[in-house]
Amino acid sequence: MAKIANEYFKVDPWKIIEEGYNPSFNRVSESVFSLGNEYTGVRGFFEEGVSAPSLIGTYFNGIYEYAKDPVSMHYKGIIKRVHFMINSVNWLSTHLEIDGEVLDLAHVKLSNFRRELDFKSGELIRSFTWHLKSGKIIECQFHRLLSMHSVHSAYQKISFKPLNFTDQVVLTVGLDFNIVHWGKFNFWTIIKHDLQKMAILGETKTKQWLCSSYTLHGDDIISREPIKVNKSIKERIVINLKENKTSTIERRVINIADKHQVRTKSEIWRETLLEQSQQMDYHHALEANRQFWSKTWNDIDIQIDGDPKNQQGIRFCLFQLVQTYHGEDESNNIGAKGLTGEAYSGHAFWDTETYCLPFYLFNNPEAAKNLLMFRYHTLNQARARAKEIDCQGACYPIATLNGFESCDLWQHASLQPQPSTAVAYAIWHYVKNTNDTQFLRDYGLEMLVEISRYVASRGDYNASKTRFGLYGVMGPDEFQMMVHHDTYTNYLAKRTIDYTLEALSDIRKESSQEYLKIHEKLSLSEDELLSLRDKSEKMYILYNPESQLFEQHQGYFDLPHIDIHSIPVTDFPLYAHWSYDRIYRNDMIKQPAVLMMMFLYNQSFTHEQKLRNYEFYEPRCIHESSLSPSIHSILASELDKVDEATKFFGFATRLDLDDYNRNASEGLHTTSIAAAWVTIVYGFGGMRSDGDVLKFAPVIPSMWTKYSFKVNYRGSNLKIIVEPHQVTFEVTPALNVPVQIYDQIVYLPAGKTVIQRG
Amino acid sequence: MAKIANEYFKVDPWKIIEEGYNPSFNRVSESVFSLGNEYTGVRGFFEEGVSAPSLIGTYFNGIYEYAKDPVSMHYKGIIKRVHFMINSVNWLSTHLEIDGEVLDLAHVKLSNFRRELDFKSGELIRSFTWHLKSGKIIECQFHRLLSMHSVHSAYQKISFKPLNFTDQVVLTVGLDFNIVHWGKFNFWTIIKHDLQKMAILGETKTKQWLCSSYTLHGDDIISREPIKVNKSIKERIVINLKENKTSTIERRVINIADKHQVRTKSEIWRETLLEQSQQMDYHHALEANRQFWSKTWNDIDIQIDGDPKNQQGIRFCLFQLVQTYHGEDESNNIGAKGLTGEAYSGHAFWDTETYCLPFYLFNNPEAAKNLLMFRYHTLNQARARAKEIDCQGACYPIATLNGFESCDLWQHASLQPQPSTAVAYAIWHYVKNTNDTQFLRDYGLEMLVEISRYVASRGDYNASKTRFGLYGVMGPDEFQMMVHHDTYTNYLAKRTIDYTLEALSDIRKESSQEYLKIHEKLSLSEDELLSLRDKSEKMYILYNPESQLFEQHQGYFDLPHIDIHSIPVTDFPLYAHWSYDRIYRNDMIKQPAVLMMMFLYNQSFTHEQKLRNYEFYEPRCIHESSLSPSIHSILASELDKVDEATKFFGFATRLDLDDYNRNASEGLHTTSIAAAWVTIVYGFGGMRSDGDVLKFAPVIPSMWTKYSFKVNYRGSNLKIIVEPHQVTFEVTPALNVPVQIYDQIVYLPAGKTVIQRG
Repeated sequence: MAKIANEYFKVDPWKIIEEGYNPSFNRVSESVFSLGNEYTGVRGFFEEGVSAPSLIGTYFNGIYEYAKDPVSMHYKGIIKRVHFMINSVNWLSTHLEIDGEVLDLAHVKLSNFRRELDFKSGELIRSFTWHLKSGKIIECQFHRLLSMHSVHSAYQKISFKPLNFTDQVVLTVGLDFNIVHWGKFNFWTIIKHDLQKMAILGETKTKQWLCSSYTLHGDDIISREPIKVNKSIKERIVINLKENKTSTIERRVINIADKHQVRTKSEIWRETLLEQSQQMDYHHALEANRQFWSKTWNDIDIQIDGDPKNQQGIRFCLFQLVQTYHGEDESNNIGAKGLTGEAYSGHAFWDTETYCLPFYLFNNPEAAKNLLMFRYHTLNQARARAKEIDCQGACYPIATLNGFESCDLWQHASLQPQPSTAVAYAIWHYVKNTNDTQFLRDYGLEMLVEISRYVASRGDYNASKTRFGLYGVMGPDEFQMMVHHDTYTNYLAKRTIDYTLEALSDIRKESSQEYLKIHEKLSLSEDELLSLRDKSEKMYILYNPESQLFEQHQGYFDLPHIDIHSIPVTDFPLYAHWSYDRIYRNDMIKQPAVLMMMFLYNQSFTHEQKLRNYEFYEPRCIHESSLSPSIHSILASELDKVDEATKFFGFATRLDLDDYNRNASEGLHTTSIAAAWVTIVYGFGGMRSDGDVLKFAPVIPSMWTKYSFKVNYRGSNLKIIVEPHQVTFEVTPALNVPVQIYDQIVYLPAGKTVIQRG
Repeated sequence: MAKIANEYFKVDPWKIIEEGYNPSFNRVSESVFSLGNEYTGVRGFFEEGVSAPSLIGTYFNGIYEYAKDPVSMHYKGIIKRVHFMINSVNWLSTHLEIDGEVLDLAHVKLSNFRRELDFKSGELIRSFTWHLKSGKIIECQFHRLLSMHSVHSAYQKISFKPLNFTDQVVLTVGLDFNIVHWGKFNFWTIIKHDLQKMAILGETKTKQWLCSSYTLHGDDIISREPIKVNKSIKERIVINLKENKTSTIERRVINIADKHQVRTKSEIWRETLLEQSQQMDYHHALEANRQFWSKTWNDIDIQIDGDPKNQQGIRFCLFQLVQTYHGEDESNNIGAKGLTGEAYSGHAFWDTETYCLPFYLFNNPEAAKNLLMFRYHTLNQARARAKEIDCQGACYPIATLNGFESCDLWQHASLQPQPSTAVAYAIWHYVKNTNDTQFLRDYGLEMLVEISRYVASRGDYNASKTRFGLYGVMGPDEFQMMVHHDTYTNYLAKRTIDYTLEALSDIRKESSQEYLKIHEKLSLSEDELLSLRDKSEKMYILYNPESQLFEQHQGYFDLPHIDIHSIPVTDFPLYAHWSYDRIYRNDMIKQPAVLMMMFLYNQSFTHEQKLRNYEFYEPRCIHESSLSPSIHSILASELDKVDEATKFFGFATRLDLDDYNRNASEGLHTTSIAAAWVTIVYGFGGMRSDGDVLKFAPVIPSMWTKYSFKVNYRGSNLKIIVEPHQVTFEVTPALNVPVQIYDQIVYLPAGKTVIQRG
């Protein structure tokens, strides 16, 4: 089961560098060199096209289509219409032909190929020398940029320097809606275009709009001839090239996607042209990006000494995570593959709350809040879903772009309550760490009450009415399909209800008027509150006080045992090699469940409980989810198993860079990227944010001489520098609440505080 | 939940009679008036067509098509290609138009409409007087017949008697492959036709062939003009009608379906024409049918005194059961809807072994054997299926026409071992009652070993290796999807293994040579036999000695309880009104599981065990399967709850005649028909065939003054006449093995034996 690195890129602390071109890595490179600014993402494809395997992909957050009804089971509650983020306008479309030879990097003769993605600017530069069959030699450079400052703005810059000739060349560039999704579908209809203004407006079947236009700049352009071809507008540009002189053309693109249909088509059209008239040039946009990233790195950077590969890897992770999401818009969320491919349909999962939210919470609390606001804005969809499955309250989707459940496998969509309890957990986690009680009152409580109603109505009392719990669920361990009293599920449900009742009670104490308002708005009754309390009190958590083990679900301990090391390597991934039903009837675990609970509510369990459960469950887990090792690494760090933690950390930062899963070609594992941050900060850094004070208990893996990470907490910026014998906290300004460092509660003053390690 | 009769047909002991025509009953009547001879079935549609709701359906046992891949889950072991019995040639195709008025019984003026199906001949006669707009009045009669003697032969006879005119009329008749399946598909391609011989050969995409031809007879025919239209051959016939004289035309049809492709198309074509040249006329075919039915009724008749509706009902059941299957061909089986409609795709389920086989076993043992031979001939398909789901041995399909699994719902196809254990049970049941050890040696044992291997490999030892059982199954109660140690499943698996080992041991004792042969053929090893024995010995059967209750599966007793009487009537059927997952997480039962086990292995359980389990499980069962009430009725009879047994017997014999489920329009509930026989013979008759001697313990429901049933056993015919105070056994010839009547073991001599009842 060991995964092996496929090393291809050069190691550099602040860049991804490709030297020399290997067409067989083309699709992986496209994913790795993806640009994004939350609003839109574009894979690192060659704008001129290439005959190597390629996915020309441009995506806009929240622009989707519906799939045809693919469901053969028409029972109630089974999702019949799924939606997915679609491939959209290729605004980089380019074609170059000189002396009848087409530029296709998989076929032409080239030298000095180099591609660089700079984490300090988000600029992607590709350069090479093209040796034509006609004997001409020309240096080419392609730059591209997505503005982080003004998200509708995108840039392309192309430079040529002929080394042994002077001539005119013809370049074709344009805006192309003839893109294919899943290798065969095109979902766009062109509503309007203008060859003077080089503007085009496309529409999806879901009636979402996307307007693109550009202006063209370049001193050596001598003529332009616009044409419309199918669903694209293009122009043939003639450029005067002089031997040994660099000629540059620059395209400044505006893309405005309207996913909510709050404006008319004409308004969008006008807005596009207006923004274009005010658009910065490439140079200034690059400067603005540098400022954005400078501030961002100041907030989030992780430095690792003595391990250049992990240094590059973690910065790549952080860079891609921020590109995907930084709280620009409350209607955005984080897809499992970000904006870098079509796999997972752009859907956000409960990874958002469990793996991504902590990163934002401690680096960009406003972004964390916006992720929660996404759930608030989609509360009505969750309410409708609860009704569909005969429950009350709100059931959040397992996979979604727009708040509607988009998973047509009923065993996931109907049996997994963890997306809902994850939202409740995230509210608790956010409020606990920010003290943003206003958010709790204005938005959080309504979600909490509705989620509590959902879990309470989804659960049942047992036959003797002595216990309550959720029956027929699939917990986080998806190798156990339809179990009763799943410990993670029941525990999270209990904590959800408890927090809801506590929050209601707090508000009642603070302001009876406010409480009455909420009471009325949510039609709460005292009977309902009593019923919720009873369900929480009787919630069945399977625990053996003698062994201190939590049983993953009712009957788990009696399941047939599989020695996971006895499974032949060729059987993996199991979904592809084992009969579907066979996966579900033994004690093998796909990803942590009891251990996940002990990570989330870490301080609610004793060291001994964590140790015993870790030692019991870890050998049963096969990590078929790429998010699984991080939880094990974090707990191993806590349990003084630093070598084991290091082993589980493994390829966390370089999963995609070194294509460990051999599927980076489909897009990046964006939520695993978040897990890499979590593993360093919560794992090695020993941070704990589920108690009344923030805790740190850093360890350092033997492969590192020093590392540091940053945390934004209650208005202070903390930089935690960990060395083998000491930990240094650099704080600005002074933190006005205490934190716990190892076993001590301390107040951190502004400036440096050095703690010696044992 | 009470079901209400929709009474439409006249009550008659030997016929189904419809008087007056009601178009809204048209589709139900078509099902009820279906003819069949096992080889083919034809619904009772009007050959001339009608504008009322209608399903023109003609089916041939084993002629099928494949559905397009409808499966969105491409995991291993999930069925991707299902097959279904298709609608085939309409050999009755007829069109009649007089004075420009088309005969359409839903629109023309008619009187004296009468339709009769005669159980003593299988002849269907329809007659009416047609009052034309032109003033002409004509009596019409349509007869049809499927030969029971020569299964390729089918007949149509049409008679006209003009009451007030003399004229020529034009009738169009033919063989029509332009039939639609599921209201929209046609699966036939015409390979060959001959307008001289009126013969046509169709082919399916599965490369099965069907050749049809007919000869036409009638003294008053004056001209014939054949034509080919699309996929049909037809002819316009001109007939001379004279006032008050009856003119008759007769069509003698041969249909030869080649499902196995053992012959060439030319051979089938020639065979069709050859059979036609030797074909009987209608009159003689009718006579032959009368003889067939006379002998059949002599073997199977059930007489009920004092209850004309049940008398008609049970004879209708027996008539339809024999029409559907009587052991003509080992490659036939019994579809859930027989040959009367498209619902359930013509598939046979495990109903065959559990509900239908007993009827044949005690009325037509050769037919019973042939049903088992169907499973033997499809053993390789079952072996392939076991491999697909990562098991050893042979896993029989939950739904099939040809031995391949045809259920694309993995939760049924992969989780239900009961079709396989039902085959093992049927072999045991058959051999026990016939003593046909030759069958056991030649065929049965191979199936038994392979089924034992399947259940043994599908099961697992628990964590402590102290118990064995099947994990992740759906037992007979389909409201519990993925449970462990289902009592029915484990018990049947244990009995399967035990019988297999016993049969092997018996053969070893009798002939070591024969044993070695089997040993080698099946690659048996002593280790495997030891392993099977260990698994059987450790098989976990959940039983509480104190309460004497068997727990339906692990954890069942702790499930949330639902008072099934509290469920609103409008919630039924639950699959349509409840969220799919909601059905699976409480103690409600769809159809009996523990009680089913106690029916099948009746004498392995004490009276007290049966009583306690009946009283526990009966109130939890909602009978969403139409086969469910019969098991309850049988056990209630045994447990001296005759009134309750009568209540459960309810509409058993008239389920379709009175359309209790309001879906007889889709076809007859053929396997429920079998359950009606089982309920009378095993229920009221108290027959038990799972012990070493055959047992009878008849009771009589208060609504009947007397009833009798027949049993063919070990070469003797037994007629059991039950009256309130006595039971009479009429036996020919003397039975040479003992039987048990109530508590006494007796030998039954030839002639009458009268037993007084208490």
